Amino acid sequence: MSLLVVGSVALDTLETPFDKMDDALGGSATYISITSSYFTSSVYMVGVVGEDFDKAHIDLLKSKKVDLEGLQIIEGGKTFRWGGKYLDDFNQRETLFTHLNVFEHFDPVIPESKRNADFVILGNIHPGLQMNVLNQINNPKMIVCDTMNLWINIALEELKEVIKRVDVLIINDEEAKMLTGDNNLIRAADQIMEMGPKYLIIKKGEHGAMMFHEDKVFSAPAFPVKNLYDPTGAGDTFAAGFTAWLDKTNDLGFDNMKKAVVYGSVMASFTVEKFSTKRIENLSNKEIEERYNKFVELSRF
Amino acid sequence: MSLLVVGSVALDTLETPFDKMDDALGGSATYISITSSYFTSSVYMVGVVGEDFDKAHIDLLKSKKVDLEGLQIIEGGKTFRWGGKYLDDFNQRETLFTHLNVFEHFDPVIPESKRNADFVILGNIHPGLQMNVLNQINNPKMIVCDTMNLWINIALEELKEVIKRVDVLIINDEEAKMLTGDNNLIRAADQIMEMGPKYLIIKKGEHGAMMFHEDKVFSAPAFPVKNLYDPTGAGDTFAAGFTAWLDKTNDLGFDNMKKAVVYGSVMASFTVEKFSTKRIENLSNKEIEERYNKFVELSRF
Repeated sequence: MSLLVVGSVALDTLETPFDKMDDALGGSATYISITSSYFTSSVYMVGVVGEDFDKAHIDLLKSKKVDLEGLQIIEGGKTFRWGGKYLDDFNQRETLFTHLNVFEHFDPVIPESKRNADFVILGNIHPGLQMNVLNQINNPKMIVCDTMNLWINIALEELKEVIKRVDVLIINDEEAKMLTGDNNLIRAADQIMEMGPKYLIIKKGEHGAMMFHEDKVFSAPAFPVKNLYDPTGAGDTFAAGFTAWLDKTNDLGFDNMKKAVVYGSVMASFTVEKFSTKRIENLSNKEIEERYNKFVELSRF
Repeated sequence: MSLLVVGSVALDTLETPFDKMDDALGGSATYISITSSYFTSSVYMVGVVGEDFDKAHIDLLKSKKVDLEGLQIIEGGKTFRWGGKYLDDFNQRETLFTHLNVFEHFDPVIPESKRNADFVILGNIHPGLQMNVLNQINNPKMIVCDTMNLWINIALEELKEVIKRVDVLIINDEEAKMLTGDNNLIRAADQIMEMGPKYLIIKKGEHGAMMFHEDKVFSAPAFPVKNLYDPTGAGDTFAAGFTAWLDKTNDLGFDNMKKAVVYGSVMASFTVEKFSTKRIENLSNKEIEERYNKFVELSRF
């Protein structure tokens, strides 16, 4: 099976109450590709970087067997940079700067040989670009779409066109409320389902995640985290753990999709334990299985 | 087995975005006693009312086989009245008035024959009164204690003395943060456990509930409620469902306590579907089991 990932590749400047880091590896496509590599060996990454993108990052992705045919490297260009600061015990995030650089004119081109990928993740990028991707791919088994508050604010109509065409929409609770204007999450979910996706996953941070499909609801717990280190990329790794588990198992029954939600939560729970992609660079399958079993213990009655 | 309940008995004036009701049956002891009656036939209620307390309410409690030996009826007195208004889609509650009336001089006296009850629920009343109860009872299998933000604000030291002596403390997430000054719920739980209780349950409303015991954590989902009708009494019915399940089954193993948390959630999910005690006055065991099974479906993977 195979998994196509389209998203941003970034160098992040991160400030948390504990530490600070410049030019850390980041971006939705990066987090998603690395995470997915633990489940499936055919990960196709599509994104753009500048000439300044450290070869060590390329080597890391290659060591994870991520296929980089679709990664554009712009000669003389600079990689997208984002600076963010977490405040108030991580309950607030402030954007310090956004330098789009080569990302400003990013036009995702899916290599011919990757257009038949079985699973597709549209990472968090402008819905217009997500639509370009949808127009290039051939009937995947499942399209999973992530987004953010920014696009709900400035590109709502385009986002709605994308939502119509995807199988799974993954958003957080605040975004679900923004998208519908309804403060009751269950009613908001109903309204979003009417926009077209077959499945809706609402992430609730420390309160876990919920998946909606037809008249079914699944509620997954969050892993109890005492010392959050850096929440950057948690949403991306969630989407990746979820989708890559389905790619690995090739079973789209609701019971297996519940497991996929838990694998998404498992991978996100690792990501936040260290800065940037540090924690997910060297996981073992044993660690992943052990964490999955902790989720079982946490919620089984 | 037997269950002693001490708490308030009130006549509530309730305003929600949907409806308004005067002199509705309320109070922690009331909600707890009615709820417990579905699990155990020996419910001993201790509280106080005035002469104005409607005989229909007494008849309701009697029809549920609630033992009222400990219910003081003060001649010429008026029953405790509380008025509350829910705003902003139930995210905020405003107290309109509090007329303590006979509750002002309430001194809970546990009838001699009820001092050996197997389980004790200290409903949400002043910690000084809860302590009086603790000083009258003989070695129950389990003491469960509820409280509220008001007592954390005005009677913290007395509350801490009570917490030291109870087996299970049940509070909500805001109260856990208030009690510890820590915004991370998992760290807050650690700190509260150091205050003395063997078990801590933190209720998170629409996000479910968590139980902590030694190094174990259990996370229960919330029932997806689209149309909340009246959240009054949800916390009381949670405590009752939890404790009465343990009283019924007489099994204090952690696995059975997880089930108890779910029965607490089940009963709370009924309470909020109608005004006052209306929804829990006429439940069937079949309805309760069906709702429990929905919780299994909701969270099992």
